[in-house]
Amino acid sequence: MIATGIIEKLNTSEKRITSRLISKVEEGNSGSIEILKAIYPKTGNAYRIGITGPPGAGKSTLTNQLTKLYRKQGKTVGIIAVDPTSPFTGGALLGDRVRMNEIGNDPGVFIRSMATRGSLGGLSKKSIDAADVLDAAGYDYIIFETVGVGQSELDIAQAADTTIVVLVPESGDAIQAMKAGLMEIADFFVLNKSDRPGADSAKLALETILMLRDHDATTWMPPIIQAVASENKAIDKIAEQIEKHKNYLLETGKFIENRKHNSAIRVKEIVEKALQDDVWSDDRKSHLENKLTNIVQGEISPYKLAEEIISNYKNQ
Amino acid sequence: MIATGIIEKLNTSEKRITSRLISKVEEGNSGSIEILKAIYPKTGNAYRIGITGPPGAGKSTLTNQLTKLYRKQGKTVGIIAVDPTSPFTGGALLGDRVRMNEIGNDPGVFIRSMATRGSLGGLSKKSIDAADVLDAAGYDYIIFETVGVGQSELDIAQAADTTIVVLVPESGDAIQAMKAGLMEIADFFVLNKSDRPGADSAKLALETILMLRDHDATTWMPPIIQAVASENKAIDKIAEQIEKHKNYLLETGKFIENRKHNSAIRVKEIVEKALQDDVWSDDRKSHLENKLTNIVQGEISPYKLAEEIISNYKNQ
Repeated sequence: MIATGIIEKLNTSEKRITSRLISKVEEGNSGSIEILKAIYPKTGNAYRIGITGPPGAGKSTLTNQLTKLYRKQGKTVGIIAVDPTSPFTGGALLGDRVRMNEIGNDPGVFIRSMATRGSLGGLSKKSIDAADVLDAAGYDYIIFETVGVGQSELDIAQAADTTIVVLVPESGDAIQAMKAGLMEIADFFVLNKSDRPGADSAKLALETILMLRDHDATTWMPPIIQAVASENKAIDKIAEQIEKHKNYLLETGKFIENRKHNSAIRVKEIVEKALQDDVWSDDRKSHLENKLTNIVQGEISPYKLAEEIISNYKNQ
Repeated sequence: MIATGIIEKLNTSEKRITSRLISKVEEGNSGSIEILKAIYPKTGNAYRIGITGPPGAGKSTLTNQLTKLYRKQGKTVGIIAVDPTSPFTGGALLGDRVRMNEIGNDPGVFIRSMATRGSLGGLSKKSIDAADVLDAAGYDYIIFETVGVGQSELDIAQAADTTIVVLVPESGDAIQAMKAGLMEIADFFVLNKSDRPGADSAKLALETILMLRDHDATTWMPPIIQAVASENKAIDKIAEQIEKHKNYLLETGKFIENRKHNSAIRVKEIVEKALQDDVWSDDRKSHLENKLTNIVQGEISPYKLAEEIISNYKNQ
């Protein structure tokens, strides 16, 4: 049990407390829920930014540069980096090292990596719970950095107030992004590594694809910003665009509307996760295990067995 | 309500009945469950093959060629093609047309396309339900063809007895496949379009990556087959490899073990989906809607609201 005193001490100058609370929250037990309930009144002030895109687009570099810019403006930044990398590659590890050297020692920056391996289902829930801790601690900006390859990572990016999709000029990247559902979630695009050949035609291709979508005069048309994150080019334009999108959300009432929408998704996820934990008691798990041979032999259908388990749960 | 008579008539020479039953099953209502329970004793005889890989690897072409080979052997084939394509691209549509011309009119082949748009959550459940209808109808082989980009599609591919991952020699494809979790689910690999430059070095790269994984003498090491599906090259080797893997599964007892494992996943999914449908009654949905403003304003935490909803559900 975490003492209430610790939650009161939660602020950006106490990284150890923030870190400890996130770890407690990640456990996903009743203690985690008590913490999340206790800190909730302190949340709601951080602006949440989602940065996503295909592997290799330069999301980490962009996150680092944007963080440095916000720090110059005197703002604090919490970063939640969701890393779906298989243990076979060292890519993420290398990126983490660069990141630690660049911004990891800044007292106004908090970085948390979350691995997808083994916990894919609950990942968006855990990331958003961790963001609540950072929000309650008082970080001005929270950046969710995810590789846009799975539904779960799209969900996280979309839980932000402003979602940035990062692409590179390589041909076909826009098409792949479209297939992966990235076009639908972008509030604006960053065409990174725009010093490479083909940057202008890639921008044109992206614009054409965006124009083909259903839209009218009131639709937010995602702008495309050409940048070279590694050389700090156009990072100021990206920060400006975030402010512009924020003002658009506030003026149109969409800021509250989106947060209500995201809250509804979140409550649904919490309810469904709790029911799942509840239904799979040891007894019902054993019952399932014992009947698997009968299922494979065609003696009992999966639907019949499911009915038995549900009926047992509801009549307990 | 579907009359029992129709289920009795279900067989490979009655495509209309198969088609109608799959549509009924896709509705996911109580009628669907009755059908699935009624046909279940007739299932379990089809051999299930999953074919997955990145977009553009040639999965459809390979599926078509393998189907033609099985047809020459006098076997019937049911295909479930899961298509996550955004409406902005015509790729899948074009592929469907080619497929219809090549194998669509063969009375021993049944093709069903399933779209991911709007139904992502229930997709693996629906695909496996549809496979049960094809199994009960008496198809010898069922092929699940999915684009390996999302968790849901990986789940479908993995629900098969033998899972084939299709890659192309382009550099980086193996790395991307690894990141997308494709390496973990492959029973064997097809390196398609192996007439292109770099096919041998791609094979070597893939072998190296596979050797790096934890393995001992009893581990199944996924073979790599170089093929050119569009020219019908090595399709016979692929069919042989499927038989070889099938024999391995049968000899080691893993065939039953895997089917039990997949049945457990399936029952869990059915139970959890049923509870979700059950908890979100109109009353509880309204209660959630009415409280969203309070959540956004920090007056009630999402966890507190979730507790209210669960408690209302369990005390009904």
